[in-house]
Amino acid sequence: MTGAARVTLCDVGPRDGLQNQSRNVPAADKVAIVNALSASGLPRIEVTSFVSPRAIPQLADAEQVMHEIERRPGVEYVVLVPNLRGAERALACRPDELNVVMSVSETHNRANLRMTREESFAALTGVIALSRERGVPVNVSLSCSFGCPFEGDVPLAGIEEWITRFTEHGVSAYTICDTTGMAYPRQVREIMARLRDRFPRHVFTLHFHNTRGLGVANVLAAAADGFDRFDASLGGLGGCPYAPGATGNVCTEDVVHALHLEGYETGVNLEALIAAAQSLPAIIGGDIPSQIAHAGPRTRLYSLDEALSQE
Amino acid sequence: MTGAARVTLCDVGPRDGLQNQSRNVPAADKVAIVNALSASGLPRIEVTSFVSPRAIPQLADAEQVMHEIERRPGVEYVVLVPNLRGAERALACRPDELNVVMSVSETHNRANLRMTREESFAALTGVIALSRERGVPVNVSLSCSFGCPFEGDVPLAGIEEWITRFTEHGVSAYTICDTTGMAYPRQVREIMARLRDRFPRHVFTLHFHNTRGLGVANVLAAAADGFDRFDASLGGLGGCPYAPGATGNVCTEDVVHALHLEGYETGVNLEALIAAAQSLPAIIGGDIPSQIAHAGPRTRLYSLDEALSQE
Repeated sequence: MTGAARVTLCDVGPRDGLQNQSRNVPAADKVAIVNALSASGLPRIEVTSFVSPRAIPQLADAEQVMHEIERRPGVEYVVLVPNLRGAERALACRPDELNVVMSVSETHNRANLRMTREESFAALTGVIALSRERGVPVNVSLSCSFGCPFEGDVPLAGIEEWITRFTEHGVSAYTICDTTGMAYPRQVREIMARLRDRFPRHVFTLHFHNTRGLGVANVLAAAADGFDRFDASLGGLGGCPYAPGATGNVCTEDVVHALHLEGYETGVNLEALIAAAQSLPAIIGGDIPSQIAHAGPRTRLYSLDEALSQE
Repeated sequence: MTGAARVTLCDVGPRDGLQNQSRNVPAADKVAIVNALSASGLPRIEVTSFVSPRAIPQLADAEQVMHEIERRPGVEYVVLVPNLRGAERALACRPDELNVVMSVSETHNRANLRMTREESFAALTGVIALSRERGVPVNVSLSCSFGCPFEGDVPLAGIEEWITRFTEHGVSAYTICDTTGMAYPRQVREIMARLRDRFPRHVFTLHFHNTRGLGVANVLAAAADGFDRFDASLGGLGGCPYAPGATGNVCTEDVVHALHLEGYETGVNLEALIAAAQSLPAIIGGDIPSQIAHAGPRTRLYSLDEALSQE
């Protein structure tokens, strides 16, 4: 123990990253990735999403993946559920937590979920009630909290109101999501300071995308202010349909590398994580936006012979 | 005027970015890029390098580029020179400043420049003397100040010693270079605080690569501590031969976008800069690592119709 602050990372790559691939990823590959993430020391993994197989065929194997992964003690296996039907399916697979999502932007919620926010809220409160009956905790993810690609900045009062309403249903864990990569450090510090002030007992996780190159900077800014839970995605996988060509979620190995250098502990073995990321190109049939999987950690040294032979 | 702190950016893309392209870039394209950078409001541009045409054939057109660019009042046009012969050629082209480079790592200097550091120092003091005769200021760039890919961390005392020795030759402007992307924010703050403390009257510029995804975070950390001069490269061009697959210099438009959001002024028109970056793929025959050229600034909004039609 170095006494450094501890940061808890959740890898959302198996769910958020792989559902955005054009190539269908076999369940066995998903299981292998989840197992590699567990083995690297990641404390939380968002394994899959129990959406309608007709809506997202890439995730039709949700039950199979949940049953075939190796569950390591101490690792939390989270699943995303969109509605009561998904929650029933998910709860049969014994997840450690359900994650539910709605957008704080009306336009984005309609575009992404084909519902008004009130309709989403009604559906999610049903999920929350069922999950409580079964004794499984629920985390609420609020999309577009740092901006909406249709509406621009979203009023903080609106975010606070949705948290207040979910709090009345007993939810104390929230992921504040930068769904399309609009967050910047000063804004992150301001919004999160307000939310912590207003809801001092809630657990907040931050979810950033690297769409505009600020993902790691946002993580470091929030960590410096004492926020200690972040989502990230192995290899930086994850799409962003409203920003063609841009990268997806902030990359787990880039975040781990940065956090360790800045003096935080994550419990993650960076070399094992890099090896897991380097298995992705063969699985998805394409390159990954990860910087660290390509360049290695800053401690990777070269010999002069290697350097001269590269010229 | 908003009262925000002013940051001075130097675009090194025409020199550092284009010399690393496998495809030969015609002089007319280089001139067009420099002119577009000038027009976007960038206050400094590193136009070219007067190296031996046999060593780097891509830069054999250095004189032509310097003569054909449009010089905007208020913009500083800098050129890199490796030795006295290059300095003679460069000074004939009336640059606003000469930039000279050596590495603070002996191994890297030998690998990159085929000389010992003492040999480099001797050559560069000759350049400095000539330049002073002609009344042209010189900036010394110190490669690998945040780490060497062969030696690892470089002792700060060594960096201070080289600055002291160049100071004895009248040099007061230094670029502290993260040549292979090994810098991280905590280290940047520590090293730069020490250098500012030791050399309070010197002008320091910071030069970061985004090899490990920390380029923008490093710029923001240094800017928060009051450092106000940074190099960056249009489109994020620029190679890093010791980190295959990794990106190059921190991207100018990503840095401008981030600095503006954080409350700094740069004098740069971001939309004009993005347009210039978007001209690069056709010139280099490949994609650019820029995030903002792909995703646009965070203020770019979409209509719901656009969103639905993308699905």
